[in-house]
Amino acid sequence: MALITNISDERELNLHIAIVGLGLMGGSLAAVLKPHVSSLSAVDPNQDSLDAALRAGVIDRGTADLAEGVAGVDLVVLATPVRTILQILVQLPALCPDGCLVLDLGSTKGAVCAAMDELPAAFQAVGGHPMCGKESSGFAEADPGLYQNRTFVLCRTKRSTTLVEQTALKMVELVGGRPLFLPPLLHDELVSLTSHLPYLVSAVLMRQAAAVAQEQEHLWPVSASGFRDSSRLAGSSPAVMGDILLTNRTAVLNQLYRYRHSLNELITLLETEADSELIAWLEEVQEGYQAYRKYLDSS
Amino acid sequence: MALITNISDERELNLHIAIVGLGLMGGSLAAVLKPHVSSLSAVDPNQDSLDAALRAGVIDRGTADLAEGVAGVDLVVLATPVRTILQILVQLPALCPDGCLVLDLGSTKGAVCAAMDELPAAFQAVGGHPMCGKESSGFAEADPGLYQNRTFVLCRTKRSTTLVEQTALKMVELVGGRPLFLPPLLHDELVSLTSHLPYLVSAVLMRQAAAVAQEQEHLWPVSASGFRDSSRLAGSSPAVMGDILLTNRTAVLNQLYRYRHSLNELITLLETEADSELIAWLEEVQEGYQAYRKYLDSS
Repeated sequence: MALITNISDERELNLHIAIVGLGLMGGSLAAVLKPHVSSLSAVDPNQDSLDAALRAGVIDRGTADLAEGVAGVDLVVLATPVRTILQILVQLPALCPDGCLVLDLGSTKGAVCAAMDELPAAFQAVGGHPMCGKESSGFAEADPGLYQNRTFVLCRTKRSTTLVEQTALKMVELVGGRPLFLPPLLHDELVSLTSHLPYLVSAVLMRQAAAVAQEQEHLWPVSASGFRDSSRLAGSSPAVMGDILLTNRTAVLNQLYRYRHSLNELITLLETEADSELIAWLEEVQEGYQAYRKYLDSS
Repeated sequence: MALITNISDERELNLHIAIVGLGLMGGSLAAVLKPHVSSLSAVDPNQDSLDAALRAGVIDRGTADLAEGVAGVDLVVLATPVRTILQILVQLPALCPDGCLVLDLGSTKGAVCAAMDELPAAFQAVGGHPMCGKESSGFAEADPGLYQNRTFVLCRTKRSTTLVEQTALKMVELVGGRPLFLPPLLHDELVSLTSHLPYLVSAVLMRQAAAVAQEQEHLWPVSASGFRDSSRLAGSSPAVMGDILLTNRTAVLNQLYRYRHSLNELITLLETEADSELIAWLEEVQEGYQAYRKYLDSS
């Protein structure tokens, strides 16, 4: 890698960067970074995405070949599903024998940061997870405003240095995110509740409704905005979500156990006609929602 | 009631109308109907709502007194929570001894239509449920566009006549809704899946997250739009939702049992590390979502 000692210029990242995975997250990042970096290459198996990104001027070069894409760059940003990130981290020492800076955007951080810990000492690596997304994916959905005002979690690893942290912070600043350092396992526990559980809750709901809709033409016409919003996450990519669930299995299961416990309590309230307790339960829920809205309105 | 034999003028409802309950639904209806009716009175215990509606010019008179509000009108529209609708239907024969037209906007239809069946023969009544709403409630949230392009379910009762059905259809037309006649119990079964289950699923999620957020300051900062959308329904009015659940208990419980069954299947897939089955399960969910989106895009 080029000798970088500090990140001085306020709006520039004087680095040769490779973004691996030019989907929603990687594509949105490329669109913001391109004017501020020395060069930007993208690695993606989808030639259409690479062509579109070249036409849009958000990358300098595109390739489906990982070795070619990361050769000689200063910084590799891994923006693929989590299990692909894990595979690439194992290959990086051979592909970049002199080391480089590494940042990832994966949705779970425990396994990724553990893999970063194992990189040779020539690597400087920090885990990342921007708290944004859409139920749709792919470069066609990329949006330079995607990260704006969103929390961007950063996780230190055994390979973290001031330089890679400063570089990551500069990148977060450029995309308009709000950096938040968290230990990897705390991150995974928190997002199992705020992200993975909501997805699964939405998925079970959609599964139940879709089965009925196949035989009952009036089901969708009597659905309204409430159903639409609470089922939206069910549209998420099975590949992306599968990797998330399989790399955060324990935390996700713990959330599902708590969810099932609470669901059983609710069922009992309805079965036993404990009507005043049920109303009190609903009131507590609304109070919780109002506290959350208060946070949203103040942030 | 005035002798009405037909509903002729295309854009007019030449009726004296009382709307009971001037919240989100009743207030939105008043805003649309006012220019098209002979007179519009509102009954609501909240004097602020009545004052605001008078100032906005969307009602002619307001009162907290049900007897005063419905005296001598041609059509009573019941826009309160469901159990209040049931209480009012019992009182109507004494308050309107000559009968009148009756329409309600309640979210469950079995109990309401059964109560309409019991009205004296001088009454002409049809059940209604517009498939729209917000997680917030009250007259301040009223919006004349609320019903636009939304399905407006109508349920025939033993007191349904051509006149009351024509009147209801004209009203649906004026608010820009799409009328759909359904038997009351089919309606209740369908909305238990598209509306009541999504609310409960969202409520359990919010309950779980709110408890953690009280002790963990970083929880809300790592929540994103997915959590926001899938928890939105948890903000719904406990009074409104309580009435809905208590008047649709059997159908709601059946949906909860199915939901629990499917949740248990999912937990087993994760526990037993049945990873390829899990991915197949997620893919089926996404296919269901895509079929639903196809319906939305075509409607």
